[in-house]
Amino acid sequence: MLVIGEKINTSAKDVEKAVEKRDTSFIQDLARRQVISGADALDVNVGTRIHTEVEDMKWAVKVIQKVVEVPLCIDSPNPLALEAGLTQHKDKAIINSVTAEKKRVEEILPLLKRFRSKVIALTMDEAGIPEDMRRRYTVAERLVDLLTREGIALDDIYIDPLVRPISTDSGCGWTVLEAMRKIRGSFKGIHLICGLSNISFGLPRRELLNRVFLSIAMPMGLDAVILDPLDKGMIPVIRAGEALLGKDEYCTKYLSSFREGKL
Amino acid sequence: MLVIGEKINTSAKDVEKAVEKRDTSFIQDLARRQVISGADALDVNVGTRIHTEVEDMKWAVKVIQKVVEVPLCIDSPNPLALEAGLTQHKDKAIINSVTAEKKRVEEILPLLKRFRSKVIALTMDEAGIPEDMRRRYTVAERLVDLLTREGIALDDIYIDPLVRPISTDSGCGWTVLEAMRKIRGSFKGIHLICGLSNISFGLPRRELLNRVFLSIAMPMGLDAVILDPLDKGMIPVIRAGEALLGKDEYCTKYLSSFREGKL
Repeated sequence: MLVIGEKINTSAKDVEKAVEKRDTSFIQDLARRQVISGADALDVNVGTRIHTEVEDMKWAVKVIQKVVEVPLCIDSPNPLALEAGLTQHKDKAIINSVTAEKKRVEEILPLLKRFRSKVIALTMDEAGIPEDMRRRYTVAERLVDLLTREGIALDDIYIDPLVRPISTDSGCGWTVLEAMRKIRGSFKGIHLICGLSNISFGLPRRELLNRVFLSIAMPMGLDAVILDPLDKGMIPVIRAGEALLGKDEYCTKYLSSFREGKL
Repeated sequence: MLVIGEKINTSAKDVEKAVEKRDTSFIQDLARRQVISGADALDVNVGTRIHTEVEDMKWAVKVIQKVVEVPLCIDSPNPLALEAGLTQHKDKAIINSVTAEKKRVEEILPLLKRFRSKVIALTMDEAGIPEDMRRRYTVAERLVDLLTREGIALDDIYIDPLVRPISTDSGCGWTVLEAMRKIRGSFKGIHLICGLSNISFGLPRRELLNRVFLSIAMPMGLDAVILDPLDKGMIPVIRAGEALLGKDEYCTKYLSSFREGKL
């Protein structure tokens, strides 16, 4: 399971302030703590700072890479900010994100090819986020077709079937899980990713819902997740899930996480 | 999800002592607390007291039914103890358990018919517990055939695919989950049950593994579980799972559990 830490995002006030002030040690510390806690990659989003986003992304990617070895997930709606981050990035980065919208595909494809990045592909198009399982699948199929036709390897594609809150529609948790299972079954070698926290929006004890949803999604084929690794309950769920699903031979990873005090 | 509380079992020293001393208030209190915590049924097992099991079962069923309304799960390898418990039981009880062993079937079938009980059917036969998914399924199929041929309704059958510890075989968690999915897919209207705690035997942080396994098993079709309802983490996982899987319209049950302080 690839864990992408979500904390470096200027929608959080303290992060925004740190980016504005070029507070290197704050940002580097946040990067380091996420990796120590179990993040395999880090999302970098400075999108609230519309007017300075390109420069901010460049700076953030540069200072983060000085202290952690993990790949960064360059997260922006702005192709120029993506390009700035990718230019700065040392090895293979992850672009967050492309959709099936024509304009977005045209913006992202050249970057993908030029930087040989991985990419998170959201199952949405001009019509918005599909409500049902079937249409989510159809959009995923179109994305896979679009990207592979341009030479992008399946292993570089992370399909995100877009989790919606169960508080607004009781059935939408199951819908997205079924979409995961169908996508995973149809495209061997592809990855499945999701952001977790949206599922529990509007309900109490959100961390409980997030953890149980993460557990349930793993056997459906979810193999990457964007979350807060500083939430102490999340990584243990992943380690337990891997052990229970036969993805951790002799429970080696589970046991060493326990010995390191991480469970 | 039918939750069967497992606490009334003389393998626990304090329960054994209470049964021996006919400590009515201890047993009744343990029954009441499990029901308040969320148990929908209670297992009663006095099997360690081989020489007095029949009398003990009769007494236990009698005193428990005075304080709680839920059905009891009469749990014994001894047909005479089962009969004693069933005779004492007011409404529809659950027999725990039958297997596909010829002798066991011959002992249990007459009781099942006479008392019109529900029954937990373990996927094992003379050859023991099957190692692989396919054989678990084959034994389940034989059990369903055996029982329905004798007029037992599918709704009265709870198949237990027998969870084994992942500490001895990393693949056996996935094996049992796949068996669940296949059994659930093949016999519409049947129930799937398991005891949870065996999965984590021999590993640290067992409650973490038990909870994640319970989460994962729900979408595979598990709709009944034997567990310790006094473990405060279990019922919240079930309520969250039901909400996430679209089995709790408008999250009504989840929200009322929250308001009652049970999440």
